[in-house]
Amino acid sequence: MATPETASEIGLDTIAELAAQLRVDSIRSSTSAGSGHPTSSMSAADLLAVLVTRHLHYDWDEPHSAANDHLIFSKGHASPLLYSVFKAVGVVSEDELINGYRRFGQRLEGHPTPILPWVDVATGSLGQGLPDGVGVALAGKYLERRPYRVWVLCGDSESAEGSIWEALDKASHYNLANLIPIIDVNRLGQSGPTELQWHLETYRRRVEAFGARALVIDGHDLAEIDQALATAEADAAGEQPTVILAKTIKGRGFSEVENKEGWHGKPFPPDMAERAIAELGGVRNIVIRGPLPSQAGEQPAVPAPTANTEPPQYAVGDKVATRKAYGDALVALGAREPKVVALDGEVKNSTFAQEFADAYPDRYFEMFIAEQQLLAAATGLAARGYIPFASTFAAFWTRAFDFIRMGAISGTNIRLAGSHAGVEIGADGPSQMALEDLAMMRTVHGSTVLYPSDGTSAAALVDAMAATQGISYMRTTRGSFPGIYPTGETFPIGGSKVLRSGDQDQVTLIGAGVTLHEALSAAETLAAEGIQARVIDCYSVKPIDTATLTAAAQATGGRIVIAEDHHPEGGLGSAVTDALLGAGQQNLSVAHLAVRGMPGSGTGEELLAWAGVDADHIAAAARDLLAK
Amino acid sequence: MATPETASEIGLDTIAELAAQLRVDSIRSSTSAGSGHPTSSMSAADLLAVLVTRHLHYDWDEPHSAANDHLIFSKGHASPLLYSVFKAVGVVSEDELINGYRRFGQRLEGHPTPILPWVDVATGSLGQGLPDGVGVALAGKYLERRPYRVWVLCGDSESAEGSIWEALDKASHYNLANLIPIIDVNRLGQSGPTELQWHLETYRRRVEAFGARALVIDGHDLAEIDQALATAEADAAGEQPTVILAKTIKGRGFSEVENKEGWHGKPFPPDMAERAIAELGGVRNIVIRGPLPSQAGEQPAVPAPTANTEPPQYAVGDKVATRKAYGDALVALGAREPKVVALDGEVKNSTFAQEFADAYPDRYFEMFIAEQQLLAAATGLAARGYIPFASTFAAFWTRAFDFIRMGAISGTNIRLAGSHAGVEIGADGPSQMALEDLAMMRTVHGSTVLYPSDGTSAAALVDAMAATQGISYMRTTRGSFPGIYPTGETFPIGGSKVLRSGDQDQVTLIGAGVTLHEALSAAETLAAEGIQARVIDCYSVKPIDTATLTAAAQATGGRIVIAEDHHPEGGLGSAVTDALLGAGQQNLSVAHLAVRGMPGSGTGEELLAWAGVDADHIAAAARDLLAK
Repeated sequence: MATPETASEIGLDTIAELAAQLRVDSIRSSTSAGSGHPTSSMSAADLLAVLVTRHLHYDWDEPHSAANDHLIFSKGHASPLLYSVFKAVGVVSEDELINGYRRFGQRLEGHPTPILPWVDVATGSLGQGLPDGVGVALAGKYLERRPYRVWVLCGDSESAEGSIWEALDKASHYNLANLIPIIDVNRLGQSGPTELQWHLETYRRRVEAFGARALVIDGHDLAEIDQALATAEADAAGEQPTVILAKTIKGRGFSEVENKEGWHGKPFPPDMAERAIAELGGVRNIVIRGPLPSQAGEQPAVPAPTANTEPPQYAVGDKVATRKAYGDALVALGAREPKVVALDGEVKNSTFAQEFADAYPDRYFEMFIAEQQLLAAATGLAARGYIPFASTFAAFWTRAFDFIRMGAISGTNIRLAGSHAGVEIGADGPSQMALEDLAMMRTVHGSTVLYPSDGTSAAALVDAMAATQGISYMRTTRGSFPGIYPTGETFPIGGSKVLRSGDQDQVTLIGAGVTLHEALSAAETLAAEGIQARVIDCYSVKPIDTATLTAAAQATGGRIVIAEDHHPEGGLGSAVTDALLGAGQQNLSVAHLAVRGMPGSGTGEELLAWAGVDADHIAAAARDLLAK
Repeated sequence: MATPETASEIGLDTIAELAAQLRVDSIRSSTSAGSGHPTSSMSAADLLAVLVTRHLHYDWDEPHSAANDHLIFSKGHASPLLYSVFKAVGVVSEDELINGYRRFGQRLEGHPTPILPWVDVATGSLGQGLPDGVGVALAGKYLERRPYRVWVLCGDSESAEGSIWEALDKASHYNLANLIPIIDVNRLGQSGPTELQWHLETYRRRVEAFGARALVIDGHDLAEIDQALATAEADAAGEQPTVILAKTIKGRGFSEVENKEGWHGKPFPPDMAERAIAELGGVRNIVIRGPLPSQAGEQPAVPAPTANTEPPQYAVGDKVATRKAYGDALVALGAREPKVVALDGEVKNSTFAQEFADAYPDRYFEMFIAEQQLLAAATGLAARGYIPFASTFAAFWTRAFDFIRMGAISGTNIRLAGSHAGVEIGADGPSQMALEDLAMMRTVHGSTVLYPSDGTSAAALVDAMAATQGISYMRTTRGSFPGIYPTGETFPIGGSKVLRSGDQDQVTLIGAGVTLHEALSAAETLAAEGIQARVIDCYSVKPIDTATLTAAAQATGGRIVIAEDHHPEGGLGSAVTDALLGAGQQNLSVAHLAVRGMPGSGTGEELLAWAGVDADHIAAAARDLLAK
C-alpha cells in the first residue's frame, strides 16, 4: 500500500497526543456550553487526528484556495470535534473554542455552517453532508479538474437515511474516487443502538453493492487508519470511491461512558469532565498542520455549444410553454456564462433541461430519480462557485424540502425549476400536480419565488435567477399559452406587470402563471359588462411588488381578486395579502380563489373550472366584491 | 421449489392469453384517453397475469376483507395495467376502462388512488409504494397476525430513490417476508436508459446486501414467474423478504416500440394502437380470478400496558414541556384505544414517544433515522385501520414532505408530532429548528395543524388527534413552560382560548406555543401602562377559530399583533390573516412578528428576543399600533 508523497512526517506518537487533545477539547467545549455531543466526537477523534496531519491537503491560511481538499462533517453534531480540529491547526483560539461554542452571536454554532470559512455546507440534518460532498466531488472531477479530495465524516446512524445510498449510488455512477466517506461506526445512536450496530460486514456488503470499495478498519488504530486513508488518497484520481468503515467506540477515551447508552448529545457535568480530562492525560495545546494542497489544476476550455445559443424570442400571441422557454433560455445563458451547469431528476424531456444537456453535455449532470441528491449536488456545485440550475416536476421538489431548508442555512446560491405545476396539468392526476410548492419555497429563508406566465417572461427570469443570491425557484407550466410580452420587456425580481389599468378601475385581478391568462380573460368579460378591472401579473411571488399592489388596492377600493393554481395556504394569495397588510393597507375586500378540493384527472380546462380559478370564477368573484 | 396449495388450476396458456389482454387493454385505455403509460404497463403484464391468477389471494367481491392480500403499484404510472387487471377480474367494466380512464369526474385516475376500493395507497410519486407496503406488512405480521401478503410492483427507475432502500432496510430489519417487491427491470426510464439498465446482478447484490432474498427471473417467462412467485408466497411466513427481480422489455408485445427509447408515457396514436392490438392477437374479454384468501387470523390479545396509563394532569403554573405531555398523553390514550400505534425516527427520547414504546413495546415501531419510511409506515398502518402517531423533530418532517403530500392524496388518517420547534430550542442552531413546518403542514390538503402551549392543552389535543380524519400535526416545544389551563379544560379542534379580555381592550395579541407565553407577559406589561390587550391562544392553527379572531378584531379596532416562532411565510400569521380577510374583516392593522433572519446558536430567550418575537417586542408592536 503506497504512502503518498505528500504524507507528512508527523509521527504516530504525536498524532496520538493530538487525538487526546481533540477528545479533551471536545469535552471542554461542550461542558462549558452546557450542550453538545462529546461522545460522538470522541469516537471519531483518532480518524480526524490522522486525517488532518497526514492526508487532508489544506492551506489553513487560505481557506478559499481552490486547491484545498474539502472536509465535510456529515455527522454535524460532532461539531466539538471539528472545532477542536480548528483549534489544533491554529485557526480558532482556545478562548473561542471554550467560551464561544454554541453561544449567542458566535460563529461556532451547535452544528457547523459556512459562516466558518473552512466549512463548505451546513450540516446537522443527517444524511446530507455526503450527498453535498457528491456535488463538490463532481465539480472537482469534471469541471475544475483539480486533484483535491472530498473527505466526508459520516455517522453510522445516518446510513438509515436513503439519501446516503442515493449519494453512494451517484458517487459510483460518476466514478467519484475523489470522494472519500469515512463512516464512524460507533454502534450507538441517539435513543439506543443503531440498526446495524457493529455489523461491519453488512456495511461492507451494502457499500460494495453500491459500487464503492470498502475498507473496514479499527477506527482507533492509528496505523490502520493511516494506511486506509493513504490507500483512498492514492487512488483518488481513479474510478471508484473508497468508503472507510471504521469500527469505533462512542465516548472512546473516557471509561465511564465508553460504549454506554444514555450519553448521546449530553455534555459531561463539570466533575465528570474533570475526570475524563484526567483520564485522557490533561489539557494540551498542540498546534499542528498537515500537508499543503497540490496546486495542479486543469481548468478545461469550455467546449463550444452544440446548439443555437441566441436568446429565445417569442411573438406575442404565439403559444409556448414556460417550461420550454426555461430550456431555451438556459441554453442561451449557458453560452454567455460558462459557470452555469444544469441537473435534472430524469425528467429532462419534460422540464426541457434536455436542451441544455444536449448543448453542453459536459456541464449537465443527470441525477436520475433522486431528488434529494439532485438538490444536494446543486448545493455542492454551488459551494465550488458554479451556477447550478436544477429541475424536476414542481411536485417532486417536496421530496427535497429538508435539503432546500439546509441549503438556505448553507447560504447556497442555487436555482430550481419546477415544471408541471398545479391542476393545469390535467390527466396525470394529483400525484403529479404541485399544489404546495409556492408555500414550501416561500417559507425558505432568503428565497426568491418566480412564476412566469409566458415565454418572454420565463426566459428573462432565467437570466435574472443566474444573478440572484440564495435559493431561487421558478414554477413553470405544462401547457402552452399565448405570449403576452414583447421581446425586450424586462422583468426585475420583485417587480410585477400591470396589464390592464385605467382611471375607472373598480377591482384588481391578480394572477400568476396560468391564472394570469384566466384573469386577463375575466377582465375582458367584465369590461364587456362595463366593469373595469385592473390586472396584475405577479410573476415575482417573493419578493413581491408591494408598491404596485398597494397602489392597485387604493385605486380599486380595496377590492382584490387573487387566483392561484395552488392550495389556499401559503401561496400567491398569502404573498399578496401579507404584502398589503404589511404595508398598512386598510379596507381590503379580498376574494381568494385557490384549489380547495382534492383534484382528480381531467383536462386542464376542466380542472381549472372545477377548482374555481378560471376566468368565469374570477369574473364572478369580481362581481361579488362589487355587489357588497 | 414448492407450489403452495392455494395455487389455482389456471393453465399457463390461459395466463398467456390474459397477459395479451392486459397489454391490449393498456393500449386501448391509454390511446382512448390520449395520455398514459402503455409501454410501462406492457413490460409488467406477464408478471401481473401470473400474480392475479395464481398467487394473489384476493376476494374481489370483498375488497375490504381483512383477509385479502394487498397489491400496490409503486410504479403508479402503470395504471393502465392495474385497471386492465381490474377489468380482467370483473370489477371494472370495459366501458369504464376505455371511456373512463383519466377523464374528469371518473375514478380511474392517471395514477391509482384509494378512491378505488382495491387500492390501499395513492402512488405516482416514485419510491413510495414500497415504503407504504412496509407499513401494511408491519400491520399484517405484528398487529393483525394474518397470513396475507403485500405484493408491490416496483419500477426499476424508482430504485434510484433512497426511500426504496429505506424500505428494504426496514423490511429486512422487521423480517417482513410477507412483503414481496417485484421489480420490473425494463431498462428504460422516462428520458433515457436507467442508471443500472439490465445489470440484474447489481440489483441482486444491492437487494441481498439490504437483507432480502433476490430471485432474478425472465419477466416474460410465465413458468419462471410462477415459480418465483410461488417461492416467495410459500416463504411469506418466514423471516426474510423476497425481492423478485424481473428482467423485462419495455413495450413488450409490440415490435415497433419494444425496448426503444422515446416511448415513455406516450399513448400510441390510433393507427399504431391498431397495429399493436393486431400484433397482440386482438381484443379479448377474459374474466378470470385467482385464489381466495385464507381466513386464518390471530388478532392477538392486547397485552396489558406496563406503565401508568392514567390521563396526565399538570397543575397551573407548573412547568412542563409540551413534548413531554405528548408522550404522557399517548400512553394514556394507548390504554383506552388498542388500535393506537406509535413510530419514531430514532429520537424517541427527545419526542417522548419513548414513553409509549416502553408501555406498549408491541405497538411501537422504531424507524431509525429514515423520516420518509417513518411517514410511509404510518400510512401503511393507517391503511389497515390502525391509529398511528409518528414523531420526530419538527424540522425533520420536511424530509418526508412528498410522502405527506401523497398521504393526503391517499386520504390517510395519520397523526404527526414534531418536537423542538423554532428558535426556542436555542443552542443546537438552525439545522434543528423547525421554522417552516407550519407552512408545510398548513398547505397539505385536509390537514389539521395544532400548536399547544402547555401540558394540559397538549395532552387534550393528543386525544383529539386520535379522533381526527386526515393528516393531523402537533408542533411541540423543547423547553418547559408554566401550565396555563386547569385539568379538564377542553380544546376542540378549530377552537381557541381567549386568555385575557375586557370591554376596554385596545389591541389583540395572538400567539401559539412558546409565543403565547410571551404574549401573556406582554399583556401584563401593557396593562401596567394602562393598555388593555386581549390575548388569544391559537392552539388550532388549522382549522382556525375565525369567529373568535373576528370578534377580537372588531373589539380592538382591527389592531392585531401576531407573534410566531416560525418564518413569516405561511405560518400562524398567514392563518390568522387568511381567516380575517376571508371573513370580510375590514380595517385591519396587523403587526406580524416572526423569525425573519437566519438564527444561530444561543439560549432560547436570547433567540426569541433576537427574532423579535418575545414579550418586549410584542408589547412594543402593540404600542406602535396604538400610536398610529
